[in-house]
Amino acid sequence: MMEFDTIAAISTPAGEGAIAIVRLSGSDAVTIGDQVFQGKTTLAQADTHTINYGHLIEPETSDVVEEVMVSVLRAPKTFTKEDIIEINCHGGVVSVNKVLDLVLSSGARLADPGEFTKRAFLNGRIDLSQAEGVMDLIRAKTDRAMNVAVSQVQGRLAEQVRGLRQELLETVANVEVNIDYPEYDADTVTLELLKEKGGAVKDEIDQLLRTAKQGKILREGIATAIIGRPNVGKSSLMNSFVHENKAIVTEIPGTTRDVLEEYVNVRGVPLRLIDTAGIRETEDVVEKIGVERSRQVLQDADLVMLVLNAAEPLGDEDRALFEAMKGMNAVIVLNKTDLSQQIDENEVRELAGSRPVIATSLLQSEGVEELEDAIAHLFFDEGVETGDLTYVSNARHIAQLRQARQSIEDALEAADADIPVDMVQIDITRAWEHLGEIVGENAPDHLIDQLFSQFCLGK
Amino acid sequence: MMEFDTIAAISTPAGEGAIAIVRLSGSDAVTIGDQVFQGKTTLAQADTHTINYGHLIEPETSDVVEEVMVSVLRAPKTFTKEDIIEINCHGGVVSVNKVLDLVLSSGARLADPGEFTKRAFLNGRIDLSQAEGVMDLIRAKTDRAMNVAVSQVQGRLAEQVRGLRQELLETVANVEVNIDYPEYDADTVTLELLKEKGGAVKDEIDQLLRTAKQGKILREGIATAIIGRPNVGKSSLMNSFVHENKAIVTEIPGTTRDVLEEYVNVRGVPLRLIDTAGIRETEDVVEKIGVERSRQVLQDADLVMLVLNAAEPLGDEDRALFEAMKGMNAVIVLNKTDLSQQIDENEVRELAGSRPVIATSLLQSEGVEELEDAIAHLFFDEGVETGDLTYVSNARHIAQLRQARQSIEDALEAADADIPVDMVQIDITRAWEHLGEIVGENAPDHLIDQLFSQFCLGK
Repeated sequence: MMEFDTIAAISTPAGEGAIAIVRLSGSDAVTIGDQVFQGKTTLAQADTHTINYGHLIEPETSDVVEEVMVSVLRAPKTFTKEDIIEINCHGGVVSVNKVLDLVLSSGARLADPGEFTKRAFLNGRIDLSQAEGVMDLIRAKTDRAMNVAVSQVQGRLAEQVRGLRQELLETVANVEVNIDYPEYDADTVTLELLKEKGGAVKDEIDQLLRTAKQGKILREGIATAIIGRPNVGKSSLMNSFVHENKAIVTEIPGTTRDVLEEYVNVRGVPLRLIDTAGIRETEDVVEKIGVERSRQVLQDADLVMLVLNAAEPLGDEDRALFEAMKGMNAVIVLNKTDLSQQIDENEVRELAGSRPVIATSLLQSEGVEELEDAIAHLFFDEGVETGDLTYVSNARHIAQLRQARQSIEDALEAADADIPVDMVQIDITRAWEHLGEIVGENAPDHLIDQLFSQFCLGK
Repeated sequence: MMEFDTIAAISTPAGEGAIAIVRLSGSDAVTIGDQVFQGKTTLAQADTHTINYGHLIEPETSDVVEEVMVSVLRAPKTFTKEDIIEINCHGGVVSVNKVLDLVLSSGARLADPGEFTKRAFLNGRIDLSQAEGVMDLIRAKTDRAMNVAVSQVQGRLAEQVRGLRQELLETVANVEVNIDYPEYDADTVTLELLKEKGGAVKDEIDQLLRTAKQGKILREGIATAIIGRPNVGKSSLMNSFVHENKAIVTEIPGTTRDVLEEYVNVRGVPLRLIDTAGIRETEDVVEKIGVERSRQVLQDADLVMLVLNAAEPLGDEDRALFEAMKGMNAVIVLNKTDLSQQIDENEVRELAGSRPVIATSLLQSEGVEELEDAIAHLFFDEGVETGDLTYVSNARHIAQLRQARQSIEDALEAADADIPVDMVQIDITRAWEHLGEIVGENAPDHLIDQLFSQFCLGK
């Protein structure tokens, strides 16, 4: 258990609400709380895991600042394994900031982003993959993405990774015996064991990596571009997604409020709509998004929805868009089927190739279900399972797994080539280290710092 | 104490944060909680005012949905005087909604806006003015506005109003004695008493009403229009206010995210900047706000800041703007004083009349302090006191006070005109009733419903 100073931050989202929380963690949390709290008893006298009603007062003037409930949570059974107090106050922007100011001027330091969770990690309550799961849980855009994060917070991935490390460690230990007691000549036995154990670990890593693509999609969403000529119904398409699926709009931190990300939930799969502002704006005037702009948008997309107007013949612009999205995941939306059809559907299907063509009348809300099915199928042919599978969703974890897998492969090749067993040991140790980085063992400080700095404030 | 069903709502602001709270109130709160909570003990076994660590589980599948801390608060020492549980979960949009869904499908009903506070009122824990203070506290845009709200939540206004009602009641009681026992002929004594007591109450109401203008400003902010010809520095002015004063941006509920209100804090006085989008947008292109648009903006303004370019001669458009804001509270901002001065300052001062003219160079951040002083002075010549004064800030309270005052005046006039004492009694009773409405006594249901419907969700 490490010793840190006492930190404080607003732990609820910014904005107006019924309740806001200012959280303190550290050995002085209770003492600082008592400097500004007036209740029936002091917080120092309160039992752990109790809620204490009272008022916050300005220490100098004794003016009442707020009516509050203060939770007292004593180490070690807390989120950080340190003493924690949580001041529940009224959820206004001014009031919660005033409460924060009060505890900061009474001796607490403003917490860095993610610093509470970092302490939970440094104090050994959770490992690094669990800490990352906490953040994924907060950022999850769909139920299924949340399930993946919850299982990670529960330590499921960590447990599996630890099992693999244990296997590797046993192999290395066996090799050590050989090096230390060369007279006990069991080289062949060792190499056999190494191949067997190494092979098994590699298989298990492969199994984990098979979930990576879908895990990553659930975690980060599918960057989705809606393209098409003017007035084919791009913004209707976007609106019908947004309306039916309760869009989640996220402000991107560190930027002005102009940059918004918009997510919609399609069968549990989060689609991140690219350039929604662009589509909305231009629709207001006269829809102006042409081929040029579409090309730009395509660069960042994992999925393209190309909207065509079925009531007009296919034009050169449409064909150019087909060309532009060559080789990409795409769904073709044949819109305005309520009008008399002018488009040559055979040509469309030919241009589409193996990609699904879905007829819609967005005006009459027809075909949206089919479209959602097609998208879900494109990424999760056999449906999204989140029950029994451990998903690997984090790019950092995926990279470490791949490197661990490579090191094991190197070891196996070396073993096949009859390289001395102590050389092979180096590769196995490296694999063991890569797996360790996932759970944060021997993780370098700069990695830890960088990871937690991406967390939100107050967590 | 009334019997209600069990309600639930998200009580923290919407958005991503470290912690979110789902609150339940009602006699089944603990039972419903236990259907989805799995911890060391059940919530039913937990003591009141304790925090209980555990997991939320899907009752059918037993899948873990979230890691939570559940606060158990048993009636009657709670916000609503009912049993309350608060489920603290991870602050993601999806996770908190999932927790809410879980308790709703286990028997809780989704709370209406303000329904928790409404129960606190209906169960007699707070009066109506305190309930309104709670909402003001959440919406407060500056420290001083918050102080006013806190004192209202503490029941300071209610106490004073109750004192006044007591005085009136005693007067009426005295009149009743006269009516019931006409033989005990004390009419003159009664009239004297009525004049004395009525006069005293009226004076006290007058004192309260004297704080109304400033109270209302602190509560609602000063609607401020920035006007001026193109390129005089309107958007620089706005930006320097926003940057130096930490703007509070509020989404207006019920509308799309396009309508934003922007508040800045000037010496504790909240300025609500009107048409900020208008100014920003047009500055991007070429600043286009002309006299026509300014006129529109002026209609809603309590304060005008007219920006003039000191480096150019006064133009007809400037003069037209002076004309347009005749009779309004205004400050004249003489900007670009870093350039060689071309404007006729005498003419400006003449047009300004008694209104302050402040020289600024917004480019060099000069004159902003002076401008803020001038604004604060305009509305609070003797500074904003929030220490000892009870501020009346709510338009509803102000209206009731005015009506109460009028009824007392009617009574006093009637007494002077020797109208029979039982007629005078009617006016005094009416004044008593008006004061009662402030604290919510005999308040009609539709008023209660309408008031609480303006609250935020989860409060």
